[in-house]
Amino acid sequence: MKQMNRRIFLRQRPSGDYDPKILECVTGPVPTPGPGQALVRNLMLSLDPTNRIWMREEPSYLPPVKLNGVMRGVAVGQVLASNNSKYKVGATVAGLLGWQDYALIGTDDESEPIVLPPFPKIPPAQALGVLGTTGMTAYFGLLDIGRPKRGETVFVSAAAGAVGSIVGQIAKIHGCRVVGIAGTHDKCEWLKRELGFNAAVCRRDPDWRAQMKAACPNGIDVNFENAGGEIMEAAIELMNNHGRLVLCGMISQYNKAEGSGPANFQDLLIKRIKLQGFIILDYMRRFPLAQLRMMWWMKRGLIKDQTTLVRGLDKAPQALKQLFNGDNTGKLLVEIGEPPTATEGGSAARGRTPEPPPA
Amino acid sequence: MKQMNRRIFLRQRPSGDYDPKILECVTGPVPTPGPGQALVRNLMLSLDPTNRIWMREEPSYLPPVKLNGVMRGVAVGQVLASNNSKYKVGATVAGLLGWQDYALIGTDDESEPIVLPPFPKIPPAQALGVLGTTGMTAYFGLLDIGRPKRGETVFVSAAAGAVGSIVGQIAKIHGCRVVGIAGTHDKCEWLKRELGFNAAVCRRDPDWRAQMKAACPNGIDVNFENAGGEIMEAAIELMNNHGRLVLCGMISQYNKAEGSGPANFQDLLIKRIKLQGFIILDYMRRFPLAQLRMMWWMKRGLIKDQTTLVRGLDKAPQALKQLFNGDNTGKLLVEIGEPPTATEGGSAARGRTPEPPPA
Repeated sequence: MKQMNRRIFLRQRPSGDYDPKILECVTGPVPTPGPGQALVRNLMLSLDPTNRIWMREEPSYLPPVKLNGVMRGVAVGQVLASNNSKYKVGATVAGLLGWQDYALIGTDDESEPIVLPPFPKIPPAQALGVLGTTGMTAYFGLLDIGRPKRGETVFVSAAAGAVGSIVGQIAKIHGCRVVGIAGTHDKCEWLKRELGFNAAVCRRDPDWRAQMKAACPNGIDVNFENAGGEIMEAAIELMNNHGRLVLCGMISQYNKAEGSGPANFQDLLIKRIKLQGFIILDYMRRFPLAQLRMMWWMKRGLIKDQTTLVRGLDKAPQALKQLFNGDNTGKLLVEIGEPPTATEGGSAARGRTPEPPPA
Repeated sequence: MKQMNRRIFLRQRPSGDYDPKILECVTGPVPTPGPGQALVRNLMLSLDPTNRIWMREEPSYLPPVKLNGVMRGVAVGQVLASNNSKYKVGATVAGLLGWQDYALIGTDDESEPIVLPPFPKIPPAQALGVLGTTGMTAYFGLLDIGRPKRGETVFVSAAAGAVGSIVGQIAKIHGCRVVGIAGTHDKCEWLKRELGFNAAVCRRDPDWRAQMKAACPNGIDVNFENAGGEIMEAAIELMNNHGRLVLCGMISQYNKAEGSGPANFQDLLIKRIKLQGFIILDYMRRFPLAQLRMMWWMKRGLIKDQTTLVRGLDKAPQALKQLFNGDNTGKLLVEIGEPPTATEGGSAARGRTPEPPPA
């Protein structure tokens, strides 16, 4: 039986709410690495709010995913065959490997992955989560841009999400009062009991604004923004003079056709707020030291990571919706699973659902 | 004949477009300084967009002007009588002396003015303009927050205004390409011919957006924001990755009841823009060195200052409208002029227009 390669293609640009139907899973042959290339078997795929940005027609910090091209995504995989001395067979790599079972690397700048060290052995979920771009986003966004001081109040939106949950824990390590907002009461309880948040507000409570205000009696010094929209406006309202607004994401806005800024934008002036938009790719050279610190904090139990795992690459289009509905807790990952094999006569199975991999 | 004191009171909070009728000029006796106080004769009053912010009910970076209180304003005056060793008779002082002929200083934190040095003798127009908070706003906003590098493009809105015209000249000194937007073709010509702007766009031209784009072929690295609204949106659209947005003012928004942020707010994230709101009062300790540099640049002809002078304190309420209509060029000042004298029987003349002072 011959292994096949599932690839998920972007068939339409999204408009309004993200609809999984704009992606299509197609099964075809496994590619053969050419000169300078290596063949990678993807193991785990990271789903991120920014995926929605990459699908748009408008250029952003990366070029738009090509229509009818393979969907871009960060993944961890293992080198199966190599014509490139940088990538040894058996090495684990992480990078923009795409929504597919097999990736060719080594000739395209975009998919130039990082080779993970063999020791310490980092599980794929951590390589994509707390020790990957997610954890690094929390680390550099909070410490480099937010610059929280002991005793200050740090507010985090989408606090039970992949980035938010790490931000809050790093802020606690730095002696801050940490307040988060999340989508369910269960998530809020988890933030307080497991992660040590001082307070957590459920954004579905009708009085969430009043709860936020009560939870921040000294105002907000650092607002780590993942949500945008009315949550950001409420945070700006509570921000103190000389506050820092870490503009990391605005997931509430990505599905909207018409953008809008916060109605209280003038407060940024009146309160002398520093707002900084940032994209983690700019910080890649500084990852190693931050990863070491993160590992140390994890070892001491100061940082706990949480993942929501979806099994099967073909489930990825549907799973991405979780981010916009707030269904996931912590890092949302797809365990890619076994690719299908060629059916009799060698024709490719289209969109076939693979069996879940052995536990 | 006894000198009287004109004072301009805030009678109503503004709503919508600023209406001079919310201010009233009332003539009364000249106050007598109590213990620790000094009496100042105001000479020149600065009119600034922020005056509209101070009139609002909502607290801002300073408390709102009290209803039926004297309108707050920055002015230059001379000490006439003093019970305070800090203020010698004859000294020139600058600060929040209010919209009035005579101010009492020395007991109220807010009206604690700066004593200007007797040498070099600084004309009041410069003390309020290029060497005062206006020039300092341009200096610290551009250099401390904008941090322009040689060869970068600096864009300035309200470019022919008090702050904008200085910003552009400081940016030229630092080797930048300077592009401004202003309200009339005459102002644009003045910016280019007299102040050395590389390009100036008239915001009343129907194709101002296209002109802006053409004037910034390499995009915008530093946007010095004085206008807000659609001009800010157009600037954000042209801003480069890692650009700096100096949020100094948003005069197009101050007369609006409902605030709104830029529709392309998400670009701040995608382009990793640093936006910093700032209020010049935070920089007062650093003024002296900046003032020396500014004086040096003026002496070398690198900075030219321009003022629009209105004569007579009682004209101030009407004159403030110029800022919102864009009628002034450079710094808008009111030469306070001679206060009225008491009429027969000692009753106060209400709202009397004084004669213009001798030239």
